Amino acid sequence: MNIVKAYAAHNSGANLEPLELERRVPTAEDVKIKILYCGVCHSDIHQVRNDWKNSKYPVVPGHEIIGRVTEIGKEVSNLKEGDLVGVGCMVDSCQHCESCEEGLEQYCENGMIATYNGKDKHLGGHTFGGYSEKIVVDKKFVLKVPENIDAKAAAPLLCAGITTYSPLKKWNVKKGDKVGVIGLGGLGHMAVKFAHAMGAHVVMITTSPEKRKDATELGADEVLISKDQDDMKKQKGSFDFLLNTIPVGHNMNPYIALLKRDATMVLVGAIEPLDPIHGGGLIAGRKRIAGSNIGGIEETQEMLGFCGEHNIVSDIEMIDIQNINEAYDRVVKSDVKYRFVIDINSLSEN
Amino acid sequence: MNIVKAYAAHNSGANLEPLELERRVPTAEDVKIKILYCGVCHSDIHQVRNDWKNSKYPVVPGHEIIGRVTEIGKEVSNLKEGDLVGVGCMVDSCQHCESCEEGLEQYCENGMIATYNGKDKHLGGHTFGGYSEKIVVDKKFVLKVPENIDAKAAAPLLCAGITTYSPLKKWNVKKGDKVGVIGLGGLGHMAVKFAHAMGAHVVMITTSPEKRKDATELGADEVLISKDQDDMKKQKGSFDFLLNTIPVGHNMNPYIALLKRDATMVLVGAIEPLDPIHGGGLIAGRKRIAGSNIGGIEETQEMLGFCGEHNIVSDIEMIDIQNINEAYDRVVKSDVKYRFVIDINSLSEN
Repeated sequence: MNIVKAYAAHNSGANLEPLELERRVPTAEDVKIKILYCGVCHSDIHQVRNDWKNSKYPVVPGHEIIGRVTEIGKEVSNLKEGDLVGVGCMVDSCQHCESCEEGLEQYCENGMIATYNGKDKHLGGHTFGGYSEKIVVDKKFVLKVPENIDAKAAAPLLCAGITTYSPLKKWNVKKGDKVGVIGLGGLGHMAVKFAHAMGAHVVMITTSPEKRKDATELGADEVLISKDQDDMKKQKGSFDFLLNTIPVGHNMNPYIALLKRDATMVLVGAIEPLDPIHGGGLIAGRKRIAGSNIGGIEETQEMLGFCGEHNIVSDIEMIDIQNINEAYDRVVKSDVKYRFVIDINSLSEN
Repeated sequence: MNIVKAYAAHNSGANLEPLELERRVPTAEDVKIKILYCGVCHSDIHQVRNDWKNSKYPVVPGHEIIGRVTEIGKEVSNLKEGDLVGVGCMVDSCQHCESCEEGLEQYCENGMIATYNGKDKHLGGHTFGGYSEKIVVDKKFVLKVPENIDAKAAAPLLCAGITTYSPLKKWNVKKGDKVGVIGLGGLGHMAVKFAHAMGAHVVMITTSPEKRKDATELGADEVLISKDQDDMKKQKGSFDFLLNTIPVGHNMNPYIALLKRDATMVLVGAIEPLDPIHGGGLIAGRKRIAGSNIGGIEETQEMLGFCGEHNIVSDIEMIDIQNINEAYDRVVKSDVKYRFVIDINSLSEN
């Protein structure tokens, strides 16, 4: 038995509270990790609250995990005890479908295994995430984290980071491109940093004039207030790419109008119904809307390398696990700059 | 003065009736055409009825024009008297913006000039379309029509044809691709013929089981009835490309589910608000929706060449201009296979 301390919600909307759970004994292919830090993603809250109607209780959230390797299976050669590592939104996939073969495990045709609330093929039941002392993960889903970046602030790279990095790369954002990042939250602030580091002319597009200063400090070259009809009109048809991080349904038509001919807006946040789009807005300029979901393991490793090279991490606020419920309330009110990260050491203090 | 007989609507929703209108005296760059045939496009009806709130009366519709050259300006060298020619949805554009330079006049950044209801820079007022005996057009917007295809049935190629050919080419539809054509009307029937000729495995997706036989005769390898939930489920995630020709707002979510990862559905028909799409449907498979508007002049000429080579024309029903109002009622009821074409000779009988 391999019992570890964790925090869990026991039913829809319940406060998170201490729980002891079992982790598997590492197989030959497994890596055991002592968790140091875990980011708080908005989806943690969605799943604790069963917003997507697929939660399994108890829910132990957390898929922005940073820790150190404490044990490796005998078939593990790319990692060793003491390595600084990360685990993101996935802990497994079929590893043989077309998507997996292409390194796109997030689109696994047989369904990737989510870090929590996924199907646990080892112990049965469902998987438990990073709000816990330790985790045991297949070596293929463990990422190496550069030692030169702040480990605490690296946690959100595993979800918010890769979710924004992947579409910027896939749609080939490059020096000189005019890139709009819509929404300044956990995802948006990472997108600004990445697009800036890629050499783009970055425009933060937000409803909130009070975010102007912060956006500029993060690396935005311009700030466009989406409620300002005149400014929106001036920038019509001028964007090479838009990354839409708004986490809820909204009217996309004003953003579609900002795109150049043949340009794309990629959605990464709104996993829910969006307001009606007008077909004419797409047809008139051969414009495109697409979605993008996190990133594959290989690309996540690449992103961590990019972060090491450009010294990119998330802007974070550290909390103890005992303050998680309060933190959730603040996330829902967008009252965090820009990601809470749990100091997992605090779990041992229970 | 250059007075020609035509048919026009004098106000929103009015029946079309005879009108005499002025055509310009050809400039050095112009081509004068005696119109033989003109297709009836659904947008003719939208504009006659002011559905898009931008109609200018009298509306002389018609942008699927086939005729013979009767006169050329002295700077016209690529055409000669007697040539079989076509005119589509555009008669001019700025010819110097980035889109025009790329041969994409339909996306002219200064606004292309529509064949009717566009701004007439020669005579002032607005342009008049192909429901008329003659038309005078800038040489750059006159297409050569292969003599080996049925001239009457070639008329709809100038709008329905290029509107479907262009996205199939732009999204690189090729031998072996599984391509779905959504909706079997004027656009859809052309899309089936083109995709078939390009070597794709073509699936006609329709709400109407009674269209099964016709779709197969047009070249569809399969027919998928979109109301059949089981069949739709079986084909989930299996399409390389979808061409959506539905001319009105509708629920796109069931079609998005049919796309493979990274595949695109292109809208060509619905110039109006669509029902809410679910962000998750795009995000889960990095799927895309795009729009596409007719095609540029160069590509339209290429399409006509393709039609000559593959002997592709539209399936049509000929009418005299005196029956146009009745034909409109039938188009609105989808009671035509698949395009009405007006025998413009009938105009002289008034």
